[in-house]
Amino acid sequence: VRGAWKMEGYVEFLALLVSALVVGFVSVIFAVVWVFQYRGGLSWDGSAQEFNWHPVLIITGFVFIQGIAIIVYRLPWTWKCSKLLMKSIHAGLNTIAMILAIVSVVAAFDFHNASSIPNMYSLHSWIGLAAVIFYALQLFLGFAVFLLPFAPVSLRAAAMPIHVFSGLTIFATVIATALIGITEKLLFSLQNPSYSASPPEATFVNCLGLLLVIFGALILWMASRPHWKRPPEENIKVLQPIGGTPEGTEAESTVTDGSNANKSELKMNSEAARKQNFKLDEAGQRSTM
Amino acid sequence: VRGAWKMEGYVEFLALLVSALVVGFVSVIFAVVWVFQYRGGLSWDGSAQEFNWHPVLIITGFVFIQGIAIIVYRLPWTWKCSKLLMKSIHAGLNTIAMILAIVSVVAAFDFHNASSIPNMYSLHSWIGLAAVIFYALQLFLGFAVFLLPFAPVSLRAAAMPIHVFSGLTIFATVIATALIGITEKLLFSLQNPSYSASPPEATFVNCLGLLLVIFGALILWMASRPHWKRPPEENIKVLQPIGGTPEGTEAESTVTDGSNANKSELKMNSEAARKQNFKLDEAGQRSTM
Repeated sequence: VRGAWKMEGYVEFLALLVSALVVGFVSVIFAVVWVFQYRGGLSWDGSAQEFNWHPVLIITGFVFIQGIAIIVYRLPWTWKCSKLLMKSIHAGLNTIAMILAIVSVVAAFDFHNASSIPNMYSLHSWIGLAAVIFYALQLFLGFAVFLLPFAPVSLRAAAMPIHVFSGLTIFATVIATALIGITEKLLFSLQNPSYSASPPEATFVNCLGLLLVIFGALILWMASRPHWKRPPEENIKVLQPIGGTPEGTEAESTVTDGSNANKSELKMNSEAARKQNFKLDEAGQRSTM
Repeated sequence: VRGAWKMEGYVEFLALLVSALVVGFVSVIFAVVWVFQYRGGLSWDGSAQEFNWHPVLIITGFVFIQGIAIIVYRLPWTWKCSKLLMKSIHAGLNTIAMILAIVSVVAAFDFHNASSIPNMYSLHSWIGLAAVIFYALQLFLGFAVFLLPFAPVSLRAAAMPIHVFSGLTIFATVIATALIGITEKLLFSLQNPSYSASPPEATFVNCLGLLLVIFGALILWMASRPHWKRPPEENIKVLQPIGGTPEGTEAESTVTDGSNANKSELKMNSEAARKQNFKLDEAGQRSTM
């Protein structure tokens, strides 16, 4: 954690990170409790208990793990790790999330088929399937462009803002789809008392929906603060041309919409130069692992 | 439109703007067609036809008009207009959107009360009411901090990233809530054939849901590109201290997450200085209207 506290607004970041972890973890617990307390638990036999894997795996993988994958570069104690390692963790978490999402979709289809319920008729299924397809595409293109060492710097620089925007938009869309799914499931399964009679299950699962919205907002806030970005590593190449690693060459200034610098730095150019030199020095001393 | 074509990626911006306007307008048309073709049209008598105002006004006001309000600063041909005028348009459009949202919520409550349907039991109602409350708060605080001339520059600078993030998050949440509402309405009103039998209305309204997602993504992309931001106006004050207007004093560098500058400018400080001086000159010649 050496140097991590130098991050601007470190305490605020830590508070938000802990909040996101707690809200995300409690969401997973809520999904499990929902399924075991009210919906007969889990099984894999084409029954409604097989369907129950759907919300549990979506909230665990497609919401919680995807959310962590999004902010993994922001953790200041990882900034001494190589970019390649962090990319591998980012890609690995997203791969786990996609596998869980696919298994959860299979569970829903299996249940539908066993119960002769049509597939793919609802808005939930349309948007959800689109989200899975775009997520797979994002993972494949991210792997090909940013993790494999073949893409030129110019392509990486051009693709990065699209990768970031797509990632955040897919994440938000997944949460929206989860909220639709929660509503559908409550309307289908709550009969006598119905959803509109507000039985305990309805209130409990509505709270799960609110938790998902709060988790999404926390992740998106952390991911979109420019001053919480991992410091650029291309400086290392500038100062240490021999030790420079291929992944250090991409244009990291486009990781989010702006740059680490704020305008006041640019305004006062001497100040900017001073800070920039400081950053170069600092980066030069950081190991690429 | 003098000078507008100087905007970086002007053609791309125009294409996206036209796409957003078309998708947003078609969404409103879809809502109207849904209501008149399949749901008996509009009235204000506590019937299901009064409820029909709910989707029409939400999609017109809370989605389409709010979306336009978000990107109104990005229109390059408005950059010669004063910041005060543009803020008034931004606030005015958001006020119209809020009024339409409130009327649409009243329509839903009226219908529920007349039909003895409980209010506020669903996740849709919980998130939707939260969105309306946060939207009202956002409008009030935005008016007090950014439009009224009393807030100090430091407060404006600190509040701007929160204002932007809250605005975009509320907008995304409104679209998510609309998707839940569409699903609820189709499940409630489609009986024999049911939603799962995919009658024409189901397919048509699912497409409306997809249009809303596309509209949201287009608006969020335009709003989050740093190079499409309205150029800062504080320069005018630097060069023309007497002609400087109060609204020119806020720290506009925080309008979105980064700055207009990209890192390569900062890296090459002489280049940055050259461009920055060019911007100062340009801004100095622009009228504050």
